[in-house]
Amino acid sequence: MNYRISILTIGDEICIGQITNTNASWIANECAKLGADVVIHSTIGDDKEVILNELSRLQKQSHCVLITGGLGPTHDDVTKECLCTYFNDTLVENQDVLNHLQDLFAKRGRELSPRNAMQAMLPTQCTPLQNNLGTAPGMKFVQNGVLIISMPGVPTEMKGLMNHHVLPLIKQEMHDGKFDVVQHKTLMTTGIPESYLADAIGNTEVFLHNSTLAFLPSYSGVRLRITSSGSSFVETENEIARISSYIYNKAGEYIYAEDDKSLAEVVQEKMLLQGKTLSIAESCTGGLLGSIITDVPGSSGYFMGGVECYSNESKIRDVGVREVTITQHGAVSKNVVEELATNIRVKFNTDYGISISGIAGPDGGTDDKPVGTVWIAVANTSRVVALKHQFGNDRKANKERACSTALLMLLKMLSE
Amino acid sequence: MNYRISILTIGDEICIGQITNTNASWIANECAKLGADVVIHSTIGDDKEVILNELSRLQKQSHCVLITGGLGPTHDDVTKECLCTYFNDTLVENQDVLNHLQDLFAKRGRELSPRNAMQAMLPTQCTPLQNNLGTAPGMKFVQNGVLIISMPGVPTEMKGLMNHHVLPLIKQEMHDGKFDVVQHKTLMTTGIPESYLADAIGNTEVFLHNSTLAFLPSYSGVRLRITSSGSSFVETENEIARISSYIYNKAGEYIYAEDDKSLAEVVQEKMLLQGKTLSIAESCTGGLLGSIITDVPGSSGYFMGGVECYSNESKIRDVGVREVTITQHGAVSKNVVEELATNIRVKFNTDYGISISGIAGPDGGTDDKPVGTVWIAVANTSRVVALKHQFGNDRKANKERACSTALLMLLKMLSE
Repeated sequence: MNYRISILTIGDEICIGQITNTNASWIANECAKLGADVVIHSTIGDDKEVILNELSRLQKQSHCVLITGGLGPTHDDVTKECLCTYFNDTLVENQDVLNHLQDLFAKRGRELSPRNAMQAMLPTQCTPLQNNLGTAPGMKFVQNGVLIISMPGVPTEMKGLMNHHVLPLIKQEMHDGKFDVVQHKTLMTTGIPESYLADAIGNTEVFLHNSTLAFLPSYSGVRLRITSSGSSFVETENEIARISSYIYNKAGEYIYAEDDKSLAEVVQEKMLLQGKTLSIAESCTGGLLGSIITDVPGSSGYFMGGVECYSNESKIRDVGVREVTITQHGAVSKNVVEELATNIRVKFNTDYGISISGIAGPDGGTDDKPVGTVWIAVANTSRVVALKHQFGNDRKANKERACSTALLMLLKMLSE
Repeated sequence: MNYRISILTIGDEICIGQITNTNASWIANECAKLGADVVIHSTIGDDKEVILNELSRLQKQSHCVLITGGLGPTHDDVTKECLCTYFNDTLVENQDVLNHLQDLFAKRGRELSPRNAMQAMLPTQCTPLQNNLGTAPGMKFVQNGVLIISMPGVPTEMKGLMNHHVLPLIKQEMHDGKFDVVQHKTLMTTGIPESYLADAIGNTEVFLHNSTLAFLPSYSGVRLRITSSGSSFVETENEIARISSYIYNKAGEYIYAEDDKSLAEVVQEKMLLQGKTLSIAESCTGGLLGSIITDVPGSSGYFMGGVECYSNESKIRDVGVREVTITQHGAVSKNVVEELATNIRVKFNTDYGISISGIAGPDGGTDDKPVGTVWIAVANTSRVVALKHQFGNDRKANKERACSTALLMLLKMLSE
């Protein structure tokens, strides 16, 4: 039997799409790492009747229900009230929580207002989980053997509570031997479309047995996710190793990394291993490539910086592109990205230089160079490779695809 | 009566948190703009029984069910099969879709493989919705007056289908006069915590009547969302104007923009209006500020570029920071960001210059400058303002907060 977790997100702002639900994916990913089976994410508005019905439904089909949202200090936050009704309970002041709130406000040099002091009023049946990063404590309930936990929706507060309280609790519940573990492993492929990769791997029934294989296409390639469940991690690891090796035999040439490493992480590992450095010149991506690279802790070990040469003046003045190159070929051209990549490498004295120049959209396209046209170049000490790409009409997507493609081009050069 | 929409996301990759569900928020936001009431987002795995149950549950409580995911060409995609079972239907080859697929592959210079040709096999009851960006067509079903639409999970393909087919369909269904419209308006505030803002606005019952007001805290401030429903947009607009004006009277000094404009959009509007230009020098944000700025179409009208001065060498060589400033005060210091902001402005010959230097984490903190310490400066032709901020331990969150704060500092200087 798997340990089944449901994630319930409460908040009109998520329901109407004002905010993307990043909490649910973060929680799901952390729970999946423990071997739990996340069966549903449900997002509903701040409506008492809807919340009560959904709580009841999820409790029936789960060993654990993780709730976020609706714990703020304003009238539109109704989760605590709903939990009170759901458990037929009343609110009483919790002295520990009140003390913590007083400390928190004292540190900030503020008086604890009556509105904020209300955060210490908790249902009697709950065990409060201390929130070091905000005013609303987490609340733990257990009913009919089901763990029900309510957390604030602010991502940093939710993550603090998950890391300090909830994940250890789930781990403890799961590891009493009653539950199977579910394990995932991902093989990252590039350079082959989903359907061709599926053909290369062939009939999955031949090797999957009780495990599953999922194909996840994205801009930078197809991820293959193997999922195996068993009575222990030793068992699932062996099964995953067997399947993984089968897939390597069939399609190993397309696999460039394992597990959900980002492209930037894979690049960083190779660059650090080879002791190489990188600088970049970004036009249409405006800084996104540098941001993606520096999202990875330790990136300063190889990334020396770059120039956001968003104007022609900047390309000329800051990266030494010749004015005549822009006049003759346009800013989005092979010649310009070659000069950018070569010059930025020399200017920053790095082993590799990357440049990107394109038409992100929605305007600025021509018949010759429609929106989505992006030139990318990678230079090292001996050569420069420039490629033209035709992406789509979506500005942000074009920026992202350009960055993924640039990192893939660098990876390719690093492997040669 | 509101027009109720449910969003059903199918895919293990979302359920286990491998991917964040950005489709649901995009769809919800577009539907909300039409005045529809998005009542639930449900995310489930690629499991036939679970899918059939969820379809039945959502159909009962909605006028429209929008499904994404599970339409790919591999064995783990089971949505089409489920729809066939659900509607007690069979798959037949659709000649239009097959022709479209053949065209698509011809354009790509590839043979249509049997696996991809399978995408032309559709349930007889569905109306196919042509997908110009991929191989899986959308499918429209109507049962007991409920619209059920299935789309691929690839965001660009889903968005294409929504824009060309689904949103016009929903608009048509809604505007036959049977349904109320639900309208939202957001007031963006900054510089006041959620609970103090709530106190400033006071008892909401006094002015809300049948509308609602939600408080959405974030790094850059609290968003106030007014939601009103009525028989027409004229009615809801009047009601929202009334409530909005009440809130302006109570807390107008904290409101810097209306609707869900990003900070970068607000900055761009003001910069273009005033005919001013901007350049930036980013250290710990690594390019994120430039990327956020250039996410807005038309940013080239005021954003001239910048330097990702991720190393001390780059700060000195590319932005002219004096070596002695770094030696004496450290790279994360008032003096360094002041020199960066002043120098980048001069170098790029712009009206404003922004600089950011901090310790994003997770490592690199000291007792004196812990992780999350970020110095930000904004310079114009007459002065430079530098402020120290103490953010948290999360690298990506620190980068985002630094960028929001920098844009808010610029906005403040623009309003003076």
